[in-house]
Amino acid sequence: MKDFVESVELGVSQREGVNITQPKVWIKNELVRVGLAESLCTYVMMVFGLGSVAQVVTGEGAFGQYLSINLGFALGVAMGVHIGGKISGAHMNAAVSFTMCTFGRLAWKMFPVYVFSQLLGSFLAAGTIYAVYYEAIHDYCGGNLTVTGVKATAGIFATYPAPYLSLLGGFIDQVFGTAMLLLCLMALSDQKNKPAAVGGEPVAVGLLVLLIGISLGSNSGYAINPTRDIAPRVFTAIAGWGADVFRSGNGWWWVPLVAPPIGGVLGAGLYKALVEMHHQPLSEQGRGVMQESEEESTPLEKQKTICADVCV
Amino acid sequence: MKDFVESVELGVSQREGVNITQPKVWIKNELVRVGLAESLCTYVMMVFGLGSVAQVVTGEGAFGQYLSINLGFALGVAMGVHIGGKISGAHMNAAVSFTMCTFGRLAWKMFPVYVFSQLLGSFLAAGTIYAVYYEAIHDYCGGNLTVTGVKATAGIFATYPAPYLSLLGGFIDQVFGTAMLLLCLMALSDQKNKPAAVGGEPVAVGLLVLLIGISLGSNSGYAINPTRDIAPRVFTAIAGWGADVFRSGNGWWWVPLVAPPIGGVLGAGLYKALVEMHHQPLSEQGRGVMQESEEESTPLEKQKTICADVCV
Amino acid sequence: MKDFVESVELGVSQREGVNITQPKVWIKNELVRVGLAESLCTYVMMVFGLGSVAQVVTGEGAFGQYLSINLGFALGVAMGVHIGGKISGAHMNAAVSFTMCTFGRLAWKMFPVYVFSQLLGSFLAAGTIYAVYYEAIHDYCGGNLTVTGVKATAGIFATYPAPYLSLLGGFIDQVFGTAMLLLCLMALSDQKNKPAAVGGEPVAVGLLVLLIGISLGSNSGYAINPTRDIAPRVFTAIAGWGADVFRSGNGWWWVPLVAPPIGGVLGAGLYKALVEMHHQPLSEQGRGVMQESEEESTPLEKQKTICADVCV
Amino acid sequence: MKDFVESVELGVSQREGVNITQPKVWIKNELVRVGLAESLCTYVMMVFGLGSVAQVVTGEGAFGQYLSINLGFALGVAMGVHIGGKISGAHMNAAVSFTMCTFGRLAWKMFPVYVFSQLLGSFLAAGTIYAVYYEAIHDYCGGNLTVTGVKATAGIFATYPAPYLSLLGGFIDQVFGTAMLLLCLMALSDQKNKPAAVGGEPVAVGLLVLLIGISLGSNSGYAINPTRDIAPRVFTAIAGWGADVFRSGNGWWWVPLVAPPIGGVLGAGLYKALVEMHHQPLSEQGRGVMQESEEESTPLEKQKTICADVCV
Repeated sequence: MKDFVESVELGVSQREGVNITQPKVWIKNELVRVGLAESLCTYVMMVFGLGSVAQVVTGEGAFGQYLSINLGFALGVAMGVHIGGKISGAHMNAAVSFTMCTFGRLAWKMFPVYVFSQLLGSFLAAGTIYAVYYEAIHDYCGGNLTVTGVKATAGIFATYPAPYLSLLGGFIDQVFGTAMLLLCLMALSDQKNKPAAVGGEPVAVGLLVLLIGISLGSNSGYAINPTRDIAPRVFTAIAGWGADVFRSGNGWWWVPLVAPPIGGVLGAGLYKALVEMHHQPLSEQGRGVMQESEEESTPLEKQKTICADVCV
Repeated sequence: MKDFVESVELGVSQREGVNITQPKVWIKNELVRVGLAESLCTYVMMVFGLGSVAQVVTGEGAFGQYLSINLGFALGVAMGVHIGGKISGAHMNAAVSFTMCTFGRLAWKMFPVYVFSQLLGSFLAAGTIYAVYYEAIHDYCGGNLTVTGVKATAGIFATYPAPYLSLLGGFIDQVFGTAMLLLCLMALSDQKNKPAAVGGEPVAVGLLVLLIGISLGSNSGYAINPTRDIAPRVFTAIAGWGADVFRSGNGWWWVPLVAPPIGGVLGAGLYKALVEMHHQPLSEQGRGVMQESEEESTPLEKQKTICADVCV
Repeated sequence: MKDFVESVELGVSQREGVNITQPKVWIKNELVRVGLAESLCTYVMMVFGLGSVAQVVTGEGAFGQYLSINLGFALGVAMGVHIGGKISGAHMNAAVSFTMCTFGRLAWKMFPVYVFSQLLGSFLAAGTIYAVYYEAIHDYCGGNLTVTGVKATAGIFATYPAPYLSLLGGFIDQVFGTAMLLLCLMALSDQKNKPAAVGGEPVAVGLLVLLIGISLGSNSGYAINPTRDIAPRVFTAIAGWGADVFRSGNGWWWVPLVAPPIGGVLGAGLYKALVEMHHQPLSEQGRGVMQESEEESTPLEKQKTICADVCV
Repeated sequence: MKDFVESVELGVSQREGVNITQPKVWIKNELVRVGLAESLCTYVMMVFGLGSVAQVVTGEGAFGQYLSINLGFALGVAMGVHIGGKISGAHMNAAVSFTMCTFGRLAWKMFPVYVFSQLLGSFLAAGTIYAVYYEAIHDYCGGNLTVTGVKATAGIFATYPAPYLSLLGGFIDQVFGTAMLLLCLMALSDQKNKPAAVGGEPVAVGLLVLLIGISLGSNSGYAINPTRDIAPRVFTAIAGWGADVFRSGNGWWWVPLVAPPIGGVLGAGLYKALVEMHHQPLSEQGRGVMQESEEESTPLEKQKTICADVCV
């Protein structure tokens, strides 16, 4: 593994859209290195997120309530960003990766690497939480693993819609929730606007996920993430819950796969159209305005220098 | 939209009270640019805020409690500041804009632009939340959209006073709540005192809104914001709740319009009178005191340089 | 009020123990300036703190629970530090002022100014909250203002011990709670250890107050502050609750006056004895060690320069 | 105690793996200095943690719920890091010390000093909380100190497994919880990745502990710390709960002693294997890559300089 070491800078370059030609072996190693980090951060995020649901469900309210689940995923995402931040960007979400590719922040050839790594981390996390909470789950449901009913436990792993929700309503819910996620992520990382503080990005992204859970969570459990949802769903299908995990909610399973990437592009595009497009380009700034009011553009310049390598 | 680009610095100048004469077309473009940002950040704040109320009301406590609503508006405001911060200042509140104009931090000619943008964002957010929670709301109230009663849902969108509250009591409540908001906002952005950390302003303002919800919220739902309250109220009047949204609470609707601007000016004025007026002017500092104790004023100078472009 | 302006630097000097001789009129003005800031920050802290209790009590759980009160005082303290931080140090607590005087961080002659300002701010806050929640309180208790019983409301303003608590137990509780407050405050502001982040001090102090409420609050309501407790108690005695506010809890009222200053000195002294005394003096560091390992002491030096004017 | 002063830099050196030969007397003093700080920060963390449990148990829900306990330990850890951070590193946990020794971040000869200091602080904290909550505990349980049953109070001090949990399941739970703790701690302090913000480390570690309590706490109370668990357990055995504290949970007491060190090494090792090993060494960076893309490695270099003395 020692020969991965030399390809560190490549990841940074790619994320910033710079194209450096390098030996084939470096690219390959970079893929593994990024993939490992993306898998690990997704795994950590999912372990904490699913763990918080398991604790609320099996504890029947004695060990946390709905807010605990919001905090579990929020802080799980924050820890994930600490773990994968500088190496893979810690997407942990295929809709984020898809949006980044769409707007040129990630090479499309990296997309399958990200999706595979996220699926792997998410699947392993589902298995881990099942193992850690095995006795709790079986004690809670009497060994009867069901998708619906008062002692249903499939919701620990994947999302299911509220009884009143139509597929169309759920589709809109998932498109909109992911749009808000990506719209705010764009703002949090926009160095020409008011981005998250340097070093405070993980917590800022965590607070955003907390907010979505608090405000846009009750319709269908705010998956807003294809890879977060499908991998644990497949795990539960295998581990004993059966094909009901795909049938339940009028065949809900495909909605968190299809809707989030659409929403992500819409939300990020909206931020770009209404805010980012209207920032002054740095070349313009350097040429025209700074001659008129030099001292005012200095802080902006300085900030850019400080934050240039920050990528949420 | 490409020609908006050159007018970036104007917004910064205006906020700092510097008057730069520029071609008419720039001003016009600047208005649109600022208006777009102010609309978008108000929209995002309101979507998250109203969404959190919708979730608590329709979930009947299973998806959050009163604290969730406090967090929804608090973090919604924080995200709004991230989105509009450097472009429009992210007021998201006509009482804030009114106070900024009163104390010369915003040109009065910008006031209608801010108010219109806030109303637009707020109205669209109400419509969005009604669409996203359409099935949830109709499932909850059986399709019967009411302003009062056990299954009332108008409170998802606009504020209504507690049963015991008189109009005078409510007026005082709204004047005082907004006064505390602006008093603290002045402190959070006072670079000669102990302002919010650089990059931490959005969360600091969010914590302030959380605090007001926790401490000054139960009388009438802490609107403390005319544009936040009236736009969703008009939306509900149109969307099916009818004229009761204006009749309810003994004609409550005008209080969140009139009281907050008064409170805002009082609160900001109080901070100015008791604290800000007594700061040493920088010219004085530069001339007199620094000769006596040079090293002590250096940190203050440095801090000013670092934070000069921070405007909450 | 314009002539207060020139005395700005004096406050900074005094807090750092530097003794600069200046015209008598400046000293006098400085007292007023510091007093105004200390009154205002205490007022704001108390308004938010007492407001959160009023909301929980009169809302009977619908507008927050015990945690809301913890958050109300915690974030109220944070806002107070933003407001008074650079001018008075934002003690908002006579036990903090007493401890600072004891350890030479504040001149004893300033002590009465601080105590008077805190009492004034605290008393006015009690009056304000009574006005703002007047209808809520009277609706809740049917106009019958009592200190004990199921509809008691005196606890909105001052602290009262739990039924099981003896005066000795309560005395220990208040000494210990204040000791933990000052012990941690010393650490948060110790620039040679790991202090709160620059700009993050208000929130750090707020989290400390939140923690004390969560961990050391149930015995007697964690006054840990003489001026926070006695001023609202006197207000309630005058405003209609009568002399019971002094009789209740077996004459509890004097405990939050006497115990906190003792605890504060013990806690701060413990930190000094176990940690601060063993820091290397800067003169030593500059002379001896830096020659052996120069690069290691540089960060410490740099940190000192950055944080020199930070005083929680 | 004055002669401790000169050995300040030694602690820093040892934590960074630099070996400086110094007079025997300095080493000895350094041990005392580090031991005092480690005892004090463990004491403070445990006082706040145990206090929050005491408040929830004796208050029967009126003074906080499960989330309060999560917050009590989380913020207690944050305050502990502020107190011991620069002197001992504020491990407050023998599993953390064991892992640091395993990976060469702490000399093995320091291990007994850390463990003894942690045990001392933890034991004294248990005694303090018993004294402060003496009347509350005896009022709650009617003076009958029991380990099991509806009025059991032993759980205020040490952890006990859920009724459904086998020793194997609990062992896995404790290995895994501690693995997640150390995995994330490694990321939070990895200066080549996205570490906690400078000055924000205490809160970041606190959020991690909050997260573990929310996600991995219900099986057995997330001791994830041998010294946190055994010292209060011994205290309760002596103070009146008797030998049941060792018999309960099928002889649970040894699990929080043995499992956490194993988990800590596994978790930290996993982060090293998947992320840290693949960072580019600074020497490589300085030689090879910087010539190709100089400006890109500058932020990394700068960050290293700023954060070099930060050790969570």
